[in-house]
Amino acid sequence: MNFHQIFEQIKLKRSFLCVGLDTDLQKIPQHLLKKDDPIFSFNKTIIDVTAQYAIAYKPNLAFYECYGVKGWQSLEKTVHYIKENHPQIFIIADAKRGDIGNTSNMYAKAFLENLPFDAITVAPYMGEDSVTPFLTIKDKWVILLALTSNKGASDFQFATEGGEKLYERVLKTSQQWASKEQMMYVVGATKAEMLEGIRAIVPEHFLLVPGIGAQGGSIDEVVRYGMTNNCGLIVNSSRDILYADSSIDFAIHSEKRAFDLQQQMEILLRKKGLV
Amino acid sequence: MNFHQIFEQIKLKRSFLCVGLDTDLQKIPQHLLKKDDPIFSFNKTIIDVTAQYAIAYKPNLAFYECYGVKGWQSLEKTVHYIKENHPQIFIIADAKRGDIGNTSNMYAKAFLENLPFDAITVAPYMGEDSVTPFLTIKDKWVILLALTSNKGASDFQFATEGGEKLYERVLKTSQQWASKEQMMYVVGATKAEMLEGIRAIVPEHFLLVPGIGAQGGSIDEVVRYGMTNNCGLIVNSSRDILYADSSIDFAIHSEKRAFDLQQQMEILLRKKGLV
Repeated sequence: MNFHQIFEQIKLKRSFLCVGLDTDLQKIPQHLLKKDDPIFSFNKTIIDVTAQYAIAYKPNLAFYECYGVKGWQSLEKTVHYIKENHPQIFIIADAKRGDIGNTSNMYAKAFLENLPFDAITVAPYMGEDSVTPFLTIKDKWVILLALTSNKGASDFQFATEGGEKLYERVLKTSQQWASKEQMMYVVGATKAEMLEGIRAIVPEHFLLVPGIGAQGGSIDEVVRYGMTNNCGLIVNSSRDILYADSSIDFAIHSEKRAFDLQQQMEILLRKKGLV
Repeated sequence: MNFHQIFEQIKLKRSFLCVGLDTDLQKIPQHLLKKDDPIFSFNKTIIDVTAQYAIAYKPNLAFYECYGVKGWQSLEKTVHYIKENHPQIFIIADAKRGDIGNTSNMYAKAFLENLPFDAITVAPYMGEDSVTPFLTIKDKWVILLALTSNKGASDFQFATEGGEKLYERVLKTSQQWASKEQMMYVVGATKAEMLEGIRAIVPEHFLLVPGIGAQGGSIDEVVRYGMTNNCGLIVNSSRDILYADSSIDFAIHSEKRAFDLQQQMEILLRKKGLV
């Protein structure tokens, strides 16, 4: 999926919502635990009710690996289900991988070739040859961690050399590895005030923004500093949508949350004149 | 497995060898491809012939995830096989994970609870709350990336603030998160000359050292600057041992490589007066 196609979807759905599939057996409605594959059953319902409001899904690999072989089966079924029923939706493997070249190669194969993911999140610590193996397939994307939404982000991401913070160096250096047609960045919504500075370095790249809702970030703030003429934002919501309700009627509540977010996004897109 | 038990194994086997299980179907002897589970068949043979020379095994997750559900089955069988037949051997999930707290928690469950791994490699970029969820189980370890063996290491790991390089900051900061009883560091053998400075910061922690052989690092150099009174080193070899030969007799050649490395290590341990 290319840059243009993503923007087309955003305009069509008047939304830049990504639904994070952090599916946790402890938190899903308990009646689903009787199903053969409770994780997939839950995901399928969530996808069915949110697909009209979402332009991306983001399974979080930890929540599948946690259940071993069974978890991988649920993951594969989920990703194939999305691709078959909603081929225009962007699918992100939230995997935070990154290793020496021959190993990153194998991860790229795992997610971008053998599974129909469109993108994978990658950690930058090991540098260029840990990232570029994910860039060998046309229209498949790396989403590189830049400034994350968690508390520990301040431990290393703000280390400053010659006035340049580490996350800024990551943004600058990595632009030499791929263009805005294959590279996005993770920038946490909890750090929205820093988006202005980030946009000075990456004026056009898409940013994947986690951290609204449960983690405390605000969409309005993110849009104020981060939206571009191609939108340039994919805002993720996981727990708020998934666990809106735990009764047998959970789907209605999840749909309502996704719809509310889409409505909020539509207003912001209109303000910017993009729809 | 605790610090003391690891050192006991090192003295007993007169070795600080870790065998990296980066099992690649393209590279294993082709007669094994006829087996039901070629990856596990290969691993089992490698384990059978190297266990007397190795104190640790390190499956590299990418090489299993690459084959999806089947790959996870091979991984689980491999880890259980090691734990059942060689309970005193340290098993490292080379996974390079690290994410916000609730996600790292799930990865910790995946590898340190649901599978019998003793340790997991973790990337430090996201800071404290991405690392500490892996430290909640007694005698289970985090092996944090500090200075890696690849070319891209220089992109960010040498960023310098106030005379302190990023990898040095990682070493210093992370010591507040766990003691030498639960934390080790990855330091590439290709950067052996920097071990002296690293030992000034972490004088007693175990270091997991990849990069000898195929990547060009030397054991002698690593030992000169890195060995402590508790050895303090776990040196990994993957491709050199695994793919020593591709004929039906591959096991003899792999065993010979592991034996040669153990012999080399025994001499170095003797020189240091540790055995």
